[in-house]
Amino acid sequence: MADPRFLIIADGNFHPLESKTANSVIRYHPSRVVGVLDRQKAGQTAQDVLGFGGAIPIVGSIEAGLALRPNAIMIGIAPAGGRLPDEWNGWLAKGLEAGCDLISGLHTFLSDDPSLAALAVKHGRTITDARKPPNDLPIAAGLARLVDPFVVLTVGTDCNSGKMTSQLQLTAALKAKGLRTNFVATGQTGIFIEGWGTAVDAVVADFIAGAAEELVLRGARDADIVLVEGQGSINHPGYSGVTLGLLHGACPDALLLCHQATREFIGEYRVEPWLRIPPLSKYVQLYELIGSAVHPTRVIGIALNTYDLDETQAKAACLAAAAETGLPCTDPVRFAPDPLVNAVVRARDGYLERRRG
Amino acid sequence: MADPRFLIIADGNFHPLESKTANSVIRYHPSRVVGVLDRQKAGQTAQDVLGFGGAIPIVGSIEAGLALRPNAIMIGIAPAGGRLPDEWNGWLAKGLEAGCDLISGLHTFLSDDPSLAALAVKHGRTITDARKPPNDLPIAAGLARLVDPFVVLTVGTDCNSGKMTSQLQLTAALKAKGLRTNFVATGQTGIFIEGWGTAVDAVVADFIAGAAEELVLRGARDADIVLVEGQGSINHPGYSGVTLGLLHGACPDALLLCHQATREFIGEYRVEPWLRIPPLSKYVQLYELIGSAVHPTRVIGIALNTYDLDETQAKAACLAAAAETGLPCTDPVRFAPDPLVNAVVRARDGYLERRRG
Repeated sequence: MADPRFLIIADGNFHPLESKTANSVIRYHPSRVVGVLDRQKAGQTAQDVLGFGGAIPIVGSIEAGLALRPNAIMIGIAPAGGRLPDEWNGWLAKGLEAGCDLISGLHTFLSDDPSLAALAVKHGRTITDARKPPNDLPIAAGLARLVDPFVVLTVGTDCNSGKMTSQLQLTAALKAKGLRTNFVATGQTGIFIEGWGTAVDAVVADFIAGAAEELVLRGARDADIVLVEGQGSINHPGYSGVTLGLLHGACPDALLLCHQATREFIGEYRVEPWLRIPPLSKYVQLYELIGSAVHPTRVIGIALNTYDLDETQAKAACLAAAAETGLPCTDPVRFAPDPLVNAVVRARDGYLERRRG
Repeated sequence: MADPRFLIIADGNFHPLESKTANSVIRYHPSRVVGVLDRQKAGQTAQDVLGFGGAIPIVGSIEAGLALRPNAIMIGIAPAGGRLPDEWNGWLAKGLEAGCDLISGLHTFLSDDPSLAALAVKHGRTITDARKPPNDLPIAAGLARLVDPFVVLTVGTDCNSGKMTSQLQLTAALKAKGLRTNFVATGQTGIFIEGWGTAVDAVVADFIAGAAEELVLRGARDADIVLVEGQGSINHPGYSGVTLGLLHGACPDALLLCHQATREFIGEYRVEPWLRIPPLSKYVQLYELIGSAVHPTRVIGIALNTYDLDETQAKAACLAAAAETGLPCTDPVRFAPDPLVNAVVRARDGYLERRRG
């Protein structure tokens, strides 16, 4: 799409933590977004809700959204399981009729809906399902451990804790230092932002690690550093399989642990609270032990998501996390990402020395 | 199928370790198997190759196989990635033309092949793809931890180490003791044997744990003990995601660790040796730590596959594994499964006491 003008649907869920896809596209490509559809927040702006995104308007109906003259409708939330709320179908049909393409990262593929597919053909529009996996994925064979660049994976204490955003912030900072740095997208939002990648949570289970391996091999071309977007959490009751397949398929040389500072329970924004998030040092132990069972790796820093703290609290939270783990820690979105950038550069220096020696 | 008469295709791979599906159906339902097609071993019997299965003949062509008057052709091997060797298509077509149904556990669904599908319709035959996942699987929410029966999962040091067979042996032994015991099949072979189940390695990655949860909830009906078939290994570079999703979705109260005694490398029968299998005590640590991150669990016994050792060596291997881990150990196929049966019963007694207390 040469001049993308997205209307993002995030109905009932446009929120700093809930509407991850919407928020990330607004953060990294605000000029591509003409509006957000959320009936509960109509009349506000992206800036009002997210604290960034400027004057991008929030509208309360598909008609008001189409009046902003988008050329594509993007699904901006990722509901558990990735299925589409039923009433959105009519909005998407109106979008196609108004000349918009459709872009989705849901597990349920829009292009599999016969009536939407027929409408798209009739109006000459495209439907892009970012979670549709490539054909002929391999079974992982540990090939990612053999690439030349230094590979860093973000891992989390839960879903939606900053694993993609941290890598995007670091990608920019490392590039600014003159290091050839490739971001590897493993989820639908990362794919929307970067333009390529595979949603590893949407492949057939036997091929999770194979998909990750293939992505790292591609990301390793012409790169000094490969930053892989992590998924889920090693102790998430629903998604840990994706997390571990990605960890073992990507064979990262180092890990960055992402945590949302105020969160107390796994998945507390999606299911009934049950599993209390253990201390960060417990995650460091778990990820290093299980990751190194396939390829030696260690956690080299903590990326803390402090969006709902004031500045003093946020700094205190970073200091506390650093003290607990003995690792550099910052919120790479809110503050300068330097502590984590320096951790990656130092760890890569050690990696290069070990390979020379 | 009222009176199943299977011709099993295991061409080039009929072998105690390779043709897992063929071997297991022959072990548990020998009366259903009229023959095995393997051009390399034609003229021998199942007994010659496997050490069990009696006079079931091995034939060298599809014509010789059809002369045994099967009413179904079963795919008896599980190649890495689950894809069908090209030349088998012609054999399957001849099977359909001769009035046979088709039964497969491959990732590539036979029913998706237009020419086979058309032939099946023409001849009024069925094609069963055991790996085709159910629709509308849930995201796991830890519900399996709430079931009443005592749930035991087999975990392994690698693929193909005895995780299904051990549970089938224990199911029979526990039933014989009067305990209501349900076997939960999580792979195609287990499904062929038990008649229900879901191949958790074939579901979309986000739903591995959800599929496991659903299976345990079903297996828990009218049961004192639920024995869940494990998959893969926690440090298998290709399949660990499936292993962990199953572990976290099933919420087992206890684990049995399965190992093939003489194996030194992960996946040595499938890919180039690379990852040396660590000591059993390392696996005990890994599985308990990562499993208990979602639901408290511990390893209560070791099931050793000693098929390629003589009797003295096999007994020595069991003693060595027990000494290393401090856990009861036996080969539950070769020897009496009592040490593991007793371990399950004792662990369940403790579980019932804790629930009362």
